[in-house]
Amino acid sequence: MSMPKFAVVPIEGTVATPRRFLAAGIPCGIKNSKPDLALVYSEVPASAAGLFTQNKMRSAPVILSEARLASGRAQAMVINSGNSNACTGVRGHEDARRMAKAAADALGIPEELVLVASTGVIGRPLPVEKIERAAGALVEALGSDGMSAAKAITTTDAFTKTAAARVDAGDGEIRVGGIAKGAGMIHPNMATMIAVLTTDASVEPSALRLMLKDVVDRTFNRISVDGDTSTSDTVVLLANGASGTSEIVEGDGRYEAVRDALYGVASSLAKLIVKDGEGTTRSIEVVVRGAATEDDAKRAVDAVVTSLLVKTAFHGAELNWGRIAAALGRSGAEVDPDRLSISIGGHLVVEGGVGVPEAYPAAQEELHRTEVGVVADLGQGNGAYSRVTSDLSEAYVKLNSGYLT
Amino acid sequence: MSMPKFAVVPIEGTVATPRRFLAAGIPCGIKNSKPDLALVYSEVPASAAGLFTQNKMRSAPVILSEARLASGRAQAMVINSGNSNACTGVRGHEDARRMAKAAADALGIPEELVLVASTGVIGRPLPVEKIERAAGALVEALGSDGMSAAKAITTTDAFTKTAAARVDAGDGEIRVGGIAKGAGMIHPNMATMIAVLTTDASVEPSALRLMLKDVVDRTFNRISVDGDTSTSDTVVLLANGASGTSEIVEGDGRYEAVRDALYGVASSLAKLIVKDGEGTTRSIEVVVRGAATEDDAKRAVDAVVTSLLVKTAFHGAELNWGRIAAALGRSGAEVDPDRLSISIGGHLVVEGGVGVPEAYPAAQEELHRTEVGVVADLGQGNGAYSRVTSDLSEAYVKLNSGYLT
Repeated sequence: MSMPKFAVVPIEGTVATPRRFLAAGIPCGIKNSKPDLALVYSEVPASAAGLFTQNKMRSAPVILSEARLASGRAQAMVINSGNSNACTGVRGHEDARRMAKAAADALGIPEELVLVASTGVIGRPLPVEKIERAAGALVEALGSDGMSAAKAITTTDAFTKTAAARVDAGDGEIRVGGIAKGAGMIHPNMATMIAVLTTDASVEPSALRLMLKDVVDRTFNRISVDGDTSTSDTVVLLANGASGTSEIVEGDGRYEAVRDALYGVASSLAKLIVKDGEGTTRSIEVVVRGAATEDDAKRAVDAVVTSLLVKTAFHGAELNWGRIAAALGRSGAEVDPDRLSISIGGHLVVEGGVGVPEAYPAAQEELHRTEVGVVADLGQGNGAYSRVTSDLSEAYVKLNSGYLT
Repeated sequence: MSMPKFAVVPIEGTVATPRRFLAAGIPCGIKNSKPDLALVYSEVPASAAGLFTQNKMRSAPVILSEARLASGRAQAMVINSGNSNACTGVRGHEDARRMAKAAADALGIPEELVLVASTGVIGRPLPVEKIERAAGALVEALGSDGMSAAKAITTTDAFTKTAAARVDAGDGEIRVGGIAKGAGMIHPNMATMIAVLTTDASVEPSALRLMLKDVVDRTFNRISVDGDTSTSDTVVLLANGASGTSEIVEGDGRYEAVRDALYGVASSLAKLIVKDGEGTTRSIEVVVRGAATEDDAKRAVDAVVTSLLVKTAFHGAELNWGRIAAALGRSGAEVDPDRLSISIGGHLVVEGGVGVPEAYPAAQEELHRTEVGVVADLGQGNGAYSRVTSDLSEAYVKLNSGYLT
C-alpha cells in the first residue's frame, strides 16, 4: 500500500456520514417484526460502482443492480433481509424491479437510479408487496443516523457493522462511510455479504470502479468474496460530490487519499465480518509464503482455511500442526516436506518438515488468543498470499442445521 | 458394471478368510492399552498391488510400501494405529523400515516382502521400539480370525469394518476378504483410510494392479480417497494363489469374477466407512447428471459434498435446497439457473431453477432417513458423477476439536 499524501482519520460513522447521504431501516414484515428493509439515499445523483458475486446462480437483485451500474450513476439502494430473491425464476426478476420501483416512486426519482440487494433464504418467492407497502414509511424514516439501516440488512449477524473515515483533500474535507452485513461463515465460498459504501467526494465513474476493485481485492475478497461466492454478494460504492471538492480522476493525488480512506472503512468492515462469523471464537490469519507462484500460495492458503480438521483444531486450541501440513500437501501447490516450515503465533513449530517440540509450549499459549497468526513457508519461491478465517465451532453447526426453522 | 460369468456370494469374513492368510492384532503401547498393532500374513509370497494417497506430504510408510510394491510381490503387512509416522523427516523413513524389519524377522521372511502402514497423529516421532518389542507376540497371535487385526487398525472408528465374498471360478472356489479403517471425515480430502484386501486367487501382478485400480475408482475413491487425500491413505491387495486355481491374467473370464468379488468386498467396506464417519447421522448420495462434461459433473458434486452449509442443513433435515443450488453455482461447472432441476429422495423440488413447493412435504419426509439421495440435473449435456458423503454434526466438531487431548 502506498503512503497517502493526505491524512486519513478514522471517525465514528456510517453510510450516512458523508454529506447529503441519508439512510433508514424499518421492519416490513419479511422477518416478522424485526427490521428487514433498508434504504441508502443520496440527495443528488451519484457516481456509482459495484462488485458482485461470481456465483453462476446470481440472484435477481444482483443481475438488476449490475445492469443499472453500467451507467456509472445511481442515487439510492434498497436492501431487504430475510429473503435473498435467488433461484426465484422469472418472478424474481420482476420482484427485484418492483422493489426498486417502490423505492423510486416513494423517493420521487427515476427507477433506473435505484439499486437493490436481498439477503436471506434462497429459493423462496420474495414477498414484494410487503416492501411496496412499506416504501413510504421507509422514505419517511430517512435520516443521518445510519444505524437502523445497518441493523436492517443483517441476517444472522450478532452485531451491526459500520465504519467511517475522513480525509483532508486540500480543497475540502471528504468523508467516507459504510455499513455491511456479515456472513454465515467467513470463508470465501460460504458467505453472503453485502456492503454499501458512500463518499461525498466527487469521483469520475471509471476512477470509482478502479478504486472499488483495488480496495475490495485487499479487504472483502480476503475474507468472504472471491471466485467462490454466494448467490447474493454485493458491494456498492456511491460518490455524490457533496463535499464540494473538485472531481477526482485516476492519477490525481487525491485519488490515493480517497482510496486509502475507503480502504480503511472496508478493512474495518471486513474485520467485523470475520469477528462475527457464526459461532466464531477466534480469527486466524493464514499466511503462505515461499510458494513457487502466487497462485500456488493462494491454493495453499485456501486448502488450509477451508479444512474442517484445521478449523476444528483451532477451535479446540489444539497444536495439531499436522493437519496444516496435510492441507498444504493436498492443496495442489508445489510442496516439499523437507522444506516446509510453520510458525504459530510467531513460534517456529515445524522446520524442514519436522516438529520442533521445544517451541510447542509457547505456540500452545498463542492458540488460546482470539487472534492467531499462522505462517507456512513452502521454501519453493517468492509466492505469497494470506486470508483471515475463523475457527469451526459446535455453535456454527447448531446455527446452520436449524437456519430455516 | 459387467455381469459376472461366475456367481459372487457375499460371506461373513475378514482379511484372514482367504486360504493361507493369517492375521493378528494386539496392543503394543502406542495407544496406551488399546490394540494398536496389526499383522496380515500370507504363508506363501503373494502377488501384490497398492494404491496410495496423492497428498504431497505422504507419510514414510506410504513411500516405503509403494517402493516395495514395484516388485509386484509381498507376503505381509504390518500396521499400527495411534501415530501416522507422517511429517517425521529422516527418522520417519528409518522407523518405517525398522517396523517392517521387526515383522520380517519375527516371521522369518525377507524384509522386502513386508509392507507397512501407520495411521494416527501427524508429526510426532513413531515410538518404533514399542513395535519392535511387540513383534514376537504379534506373530504368535496370528490366526484365522481377522477381527483383532480389524480392531487394531482403527482410530476414531466406532466399529470394526470387515467384509468377504466367495466366487466359484470353475476350477475351484476363490475367496476374497478385507478389513478397513474409517476416516475422520468421509470427504475425499479429510480422511485417513487404510484397507487391506486379500484373495487366494492366483493373479498375475499387472492384472492385479489393474483390478485394484478399477475397483478402488468405483468404491473408496467415491468416498474418501482421490486427488485430495490424507498423508497416509493406503489400499493394498494381496493374492496368494492358495485356492489352487490357475493363474488369472487380464481377459480371462475369471478375471471379471474375481474383480466383481473384490468390488463387493471393497464396496461393503466403503459403505461402512461412510456409516462410521465421525458424528455422522446420515449418508447422502449426491448425483450430478446433465453436466457439460464428466469433469464438470465431478466439480459440481465436489462443491456440494464439501459445502458446510449443505452438510449442516442435511444434519438438521432441512429442505434448504438453495444451499445446494448455491454450491452448484460456485462449483466452476457450467450451470444455467433456468435449466437446473434438483430431486431429493426422488421428489423434484426444483425445476427450471425454481422451487416446486408441492413436492416439499414429501421431500421433507425423506430428509429424516439415514440414507438420502440427491440428484441435480444441470441440463447441459451428458456428464455424470456421484459421491456419498455425510452430514456435519456438532459431534464431529466436538470430536475433532479435542483429538489430541
